[in-house]
Amino acid sequence: MNTPDWLATELPILQAPMAGVQGSALAIAVCQGGGLGALPCAMLSGEEIREEVARIRAQTDRPFNLNFFAHAVPAPDPEREAAWRARFAAYYEEFGLDPASATGGPARRPFDAEIAALVRALRPPVVSFHFGLPADDLLAEVRSAGARILASATTVAEALWLEARGVDAIIAQGIEAGGHRGLFLSEDLDTQLGTLALVPQVVQAVRVPVIAAGGIADARGVHAALALGAAAAQVGTAYLLCPEATTRAVHRAALKSERARHTALTNVFSGRPARGIVNRLMTELGPMAADAPRFPLATAASAPLRAKAESLGVDDFSPLWAGQNTSGCREVPAADLTRALAGLA
Amino acid sequence: MNTPDWLATELPILQAPMAGVQGSALAIAVCQGGGLGALPCAMLSGEEIREEVARIRAQTDRPFNLNFFAHAVPAPDPEREAAWRARFAAYYEEFGLDPASATGGPARRPFDAEIAALVRALRPPVVSFHFGLPADDLLAEVRSAGARILASATTVAEALWLEARGVDAIIAQGIEAGGHRGLFLSEDLDTQLGTLALVPQVVQAVRVPVIAAGGIADARGVHAALALGAAAAQVGTAYLLCPEATTRAVHRAALKSERARHTALTNVFSGRPARGIVNRLMTELGPMAADAPRFPLATAASAPLRAKAESLGVDDFSPLWAGQNTSGCREVPAADLTRALAGLA
Repeated sequence: MNTPDWLATELPILQAPMAGVQGSALAIAVCQGGGLGALPCAMLSGEEIREEVARIRAQTDRPFNLNFFAHAVPAPDPEREAAWRARFAAYYEEFGLDPASATGGPARRPFDAEIAALVRALRPPVVSFHFGLPADDLLAEVRSAGARILASATTVAEALWLEARGVDAIIAQGIEAGGHRGLFLSEDLDTQLGTLALVPQVVQAVRVPVIAAGGIADARGVHAALALGAAAAQVGTAYLLCPEATTRAVHRAALKSERARHTALTNVFSGRPARGIVNRLMTELGPMAADAPRFPLATAASAPLRAKAESLGVDDFSPLWAGQNTSGCREVPAADLTRALAGLA
Repeated sequence: MNTPDWLATELPILQAPMAGVQGSALAIAVCQGGGLGALPCAMLSGEEIREEVARIRAQTDRPFNLNFFAHAVPAPDPEREAAWRARFAAYYEEFGLDPASATGGPARRPFDAEIAALVRALRPPVVSFHFGLPADDLLAEVRSAGARILASATTVAEALWLEARGVDAIIAQGIEAGGHRGLFLSEDLDTQLGTLALVPQVVQAVRVPVIAAGGIADARGVHAALALGAAAAQVGTAYLLCPEATTRAVHRAALKSERARHTALTNVFSGRPARGIVNRLMTELGPMAADAPRFPLATAASAPLRAKAESLGVDDFSPLWAGQNTSGCREVPAADLTRALAGLA
């Protein structure tokens, strides 16, 4: 497999940033294996980002990717949020929890001026965005910091939009992908394409390099992605069982079970469609709930339930993010998995 | 590209049978081009099947595929059907049609004893099934007639089910595919996988050869399918503009337009989920309507509207079947397209 020069890695493999299930350890291991490791930053404070980047640089001199979300923060909608919390009342009762505890939940911070200043200071080799791009002036700061800029597209229209704003490469995210879908120009899930259909159409539409993502679990999948015209492949789900990932116990167990064959797009955990293994909350409230508060405001309602249930070994309220192909999940060091994805022994 | 011996064609390309938009002419052209041409039989009478097979044999001595549906015929549900027809009342008024004319619509006949006898008489080289398989005794008749048996799977569970019943090869139909989805063990559309995720998992699960289908539009797509472990690729949508297809004018126009980028799974035309270019009926009643009569009983309601609208050049009520990758649709002879799909000039 050829690796394009612009990627500056040994192998044409990118590790998908996965907020909530990994930190610098996974990124470092992937970099050491020859791929592009990624640090998901959307759930980290500025100080945490600084510390994680320091850890990465202490362990590898290879390029790495800092990933940010570019969503618009929704206006609070107390009525909608209260109605949403009310749907959880029976669950709180069942687990003996106080509904008033549902005030927090993991925050997702969009890229802003403060983070742009941090990027200028940290000068990461690569920065990637999900859910579109930040405002032009902020994007210009990232560019002037010397970072190559990647962003996710789920349709040809999104790819053209990103190219017009000057991204260096486009991650074409097919419907198979686990976790949050990057869609940002339309909320209509029918616009979302399978990877095999999306990648060649994006390749045909844009001049910048295209990175294929979604359903790629092994070297055959990477070969297929390159055959479709992609310059490299981004892989997430396959890394979830690696020791360097922070994937929780209930999540690991679900990934190793037959249940992993059945995933769905759901918005009940965060307010945005994301693919995970079907579980109780998805079945009972969704998987797509028309009344869910907008991302990330839906998160608070299930957070205390998730913590309590997980402490009992129950995954009923946990986002069990996974793509449609968990056949590549292996409990091996991420560096080894990276090399295997590239067809090396 | 290598072609497996069992397929007995020159090229590893199968033309997807597409009821309603093609007959023997397309099958013949594909066979002459070196692929496996297919005749969709579900909307043909026994006599028509006989005539079409005679035409094929008069024009080519290469193998061909007779395709049948294996759905269970639903019990009539007059109340549900009347309620469904009532949803069309304003459309009938708009087009000056008598709602009482909605009594017919194209029939879809499942494989039965009479057709099995016909297959014994005709001895086609290949028979393929969609929506599962006919009863064991009927399947045994097809086998004893000497036909290789193919059938569609949309999940690993369906592939294992088909293999246990002795099919010779499995068509792994990914979510990108146009027209009717072959799903038969579950009606849950969340079980449906993208081709890039489905094919390698089916290949891993079964011992029989796997044919990849869904989103494959050109030689790159075929290469990708083979990289995933498929023995061959089945292509439908790309043939829809060929002169040998009987694709109607409104359908051809939609395929050539920007609208072709936006497809969805819909049951408003037939009662079963099928992928087509989004149009008025899909938008206003669906795309998935919980109250649609069971396949094929939903067809009658829109049939007169479709005929009238098409006569006016309007595609509001026409099933505009298409997969998620129409980039390969070309107005060239199907034999040429077949060779191009296999990477030949």
